[in-house]
Amino acid sequence: MRNLKIDPRRLWDEIHETGKIGATAKGGVKRLTLSDEDRRVRDWFRMRAEKLGCTVTVDGVGNMFALKAGKNPNRLPIAMGSHLDTQPTGGKFDGILGVHAGIEVLQTLADNDIQTDAPLLVINWTNEEGSRFSPAVMGSGAFVGAFSQAEVLAKTDRDGVSFGSALDSIGYRGAQPLGAMKMAAYFELHIEQGPYLEAENKDVGVVTLVQGIRWFNGQCVGMDAHAGATPMHRRADALLGVARLADRLEAIALAHAPHAVATMGVIDVKEASINVVPGLVHFTIDLRDPSDHVLDAMEAEIQKALAEIGARSGVTLTINRFWNAAPLPFDPVCVDAVRQAAAKSGFTTRDCTSGASHDAAYMQNIVPSAMIFVPSKDGLSHNELEYSSLEDCGAGAQVLLDAVLLMDEAGH
Amino acid sequence: MRNLKIDPRRLWDEIHETGKIGATAKGGVKRLTLSDEDRRVRDWFRMRAEKLGCTVTVDGVGNMFALKAGKNPNRLPIAMGSHLDTQPTGGKFDGILGVHAGIEVLQTLADNDIQTDAPLLVINWTNEEGSRFSPAVMGSGAFVGAFSQAEVLAKTDRDGVSFGSALDSIGYRGAQPLGAMKMAAYFELHIEQGPYLEAENKDVGVVTLVQGIRWFNGQCVGMDAHAGATPMHRRADALLGVARLADRLEAIALAHAPHAVATMGVIDVKEASINVVPGLVHFTIDLRDPSDHVLDAMEAEIQKALAEIGARSGVTLTINRFWNAAPLPFDPVCVDAVRQAAAKSGFTTRDCTSGASHDAAYMQNIVPSAMIFVPSKDGLSHNELEYSSLEDCGAGAQVLLDAVLLMDEAGH
Repeated sequence: MRNLKIDPRRLWDEIHETGKIGATAKGGVKRLTLSDEDRRVRDWFRMRAEKLGCTVTVDGVGNMFALKAGKNPNRLPIAMGSHLDTQPTGGKFDGILGVHAGIEVLQTLADNDIQTDAPLLVINWTNEEGSRFSPAVMGSGAFVGAFSQAEVLAKTDRDGVSFGSALDSIGYRGAQPLGAMKMAAYFELHIEQGPYLEAENKDVGVVTLVQGIRWFNGQCVGMDAHAGATPMHRRADALLGVARLADRLEAIALAHAPHAVATMGVIDVKEASINVVPGLVHFTIDLRDPSDHVLDAMEAEIQKALAEIGARSGVTLTINRFWNAAPLPFDPVCVDAVRQAAAKSGFTTRDCTSGASHDAAYMQNIVPSAMIFVPSKDGLSHNELEYSSLEDCGAGAQVLLDAVLLMDEAGH
Repeated sequence: MRNLKIDPRRLWDEIHETGKIGATAKGGVKRLTLSDEDRRVRDWFRMRAEKLGCTVTVDGVGNMFALKAGKNPNRLPIAMGSHLDTQPTGGKFDGILGVHAGIEVLQTLADNDIQTDAPLLVINWTNEEGSRFSPAVMGSGAFVGAFSQAEVLAKTDRDGVSFGSALDSIGYRGAQPLGAMKMAAYFELHIEQGPYLEAENKDVGVVTLVQGIRWFNGQCVGMDAHAGATPMHRRADALLGVARLADRLEAIALAHAPHAVATMGVIDVKEASINVVPGLVHFTIDLRDPSDHVLDAMEAEIQKALAEIGARSGVTLTINRFWNAAPLPFDPVCVDAVRQAAAKSGFTTRDCTSGASHDAAYMQNIVPSAMIFVPSKDGLSHNELEYSSLEDCGAGAQVLLDAVLLMDEAGH
């Protein structure tokens, strides 16, 4: 096994170079999918990969593939990737680190004049965040067949702009058919977005499993009424019903410690006015756990809570599950490559489950895949203060390089 | 005292005629202040009043005054009025009944060839609802000096449109200085917007007092974080903090039964996303009670709740009171005129406090004023299903006529 070293400083500088695209006042990044900022970072990615001798292709939903030829034209490429889009108040590392690390791996190989046996591939997936166009992890989902291309192109944002027209307007609708790019394995380096590595002072997380995720839209129907003239006991306050559900959601998640999480991220009062008792409120729920049994139990408890709160508050609460990603173990060979690669550099490790959805979770359905985590300061993510140190980012990229080389040498 | 009868059917038909302006699918009215719908109903009011021989003038914030001359040019006019704007999902009666009843009073006098001794005045106040431009009851507030004209004109709606430019765009910025129209008394007929008259099967409410109202803007600061990767115990969920406050608000109001009400009408998550734990949430609170002591106690309990919930939920909750209208008794002479007028027709009555703010509450500060309530079906208001029957509307207008005639004959 070769003894190559990636350059943590170069990686760090490049992350901060693209971090200027959509930079926010608080030090984060706002680079919504298919926005002009997304276009600019895509242009950067294409230019950077082409300088490394890659051929960059784009598929029908904007996923970008930078392919570097290997010695053996009969082998499928070993892939690295993640995403360059962010949340509205996102940080500089979520997704971004994984793409930059792939570039850094190719640069390190080029600097050492090394051509791998298998071709290598660096991928920038479209719309991992799902903030502008729902659901999240859309580009890799479409790549593996979870959504059709037509379905993705027809999605609209809150302003009614379709995914297809946004894709066209930034010039990133490619000709390559979805799923046409074949590969032997897929590795994704990502920040942990949680507190465990930092709390236990570990260098690198070996991700063995992606938590299951269920997403729901909900609504609460009460009766809008005059805030001044409607006595408390005659109200059917839809906001109060949803407020009680938010409180109950936390209790349900806590009852399924330590992994379960439940979040109400959106609450929206129809025609809200300071002096009107809300009659209709929409909301969302996000549930995650490594076990489908736990998710089933939480969902049943939520349904019970809807009925109880509805009866108590005189409102009708309903939810509709529109996304269900089952818990998913990663490929044992790929996971083992990550573990060996970390050991080679003497990094301390911890087995992790991923609480977030990731492109790697979809990829595992069709390609042997694994993920590498590095610590997130204070466990923060989807936040402008998100931070992983230069050393942590460098450690992750080093493990990525060595895992890819292990797979290359093993002939996978 | 003359024995004139207003025409309930004519009143009813005219209410349904203007109800077409901004009619909603569910049978309500959406006629936001200074919208094109507001312009159309103002045009109707002007046309209808001029047909009755009134002189219609408009002041600098768009308040409209239809003046019908009396026999005695030395007397000040006796006024009737209310408002023709509505909530976004408003009904056909709130405010509207009071203006239409004023027109019906003038029409009844004209049909009977009667000229009162004092001049009569019918007023359509601008922006009673406060839904597009906050605060509510703005036109009459500016008339009595609670706000300056410049302050009102500078208010902006959620789209950044100023009150002044909206007023100009519908052509209703008048030349008459605010407060220039003097009057001897002011009567406002309004739907109860509460359940008491219907529940006790009374025809008419004699309103003796307006409840005190306090309006607050609030914010809750937590920390936005990844919904999948942030364990429950490490969250500072701003939405959850506000949800707990909503629940507590209800308890605080119930502890001050029977009159106290507390409402959270607006809740707004900054950069809301299904997979982000909310870090910043804005909300509003509306408190009402007939006693300032009770309002003080409620406000103190809310402040205590903010601290408690903040400590428990790891968030910072603050509120800012931006409007405080003290409880206000109406003028005893005017209230007595309403009571006598109701007795004359044999209507059953109940003394009421007004839970809503009304233009009459501001007017009482500078002119002897009173209000007449009629039943609201199911106590509903600020709702498209708001309803008062033809008979109830007619009874209210009859009391309005007779109260005005009593004042006229008494020489007030």
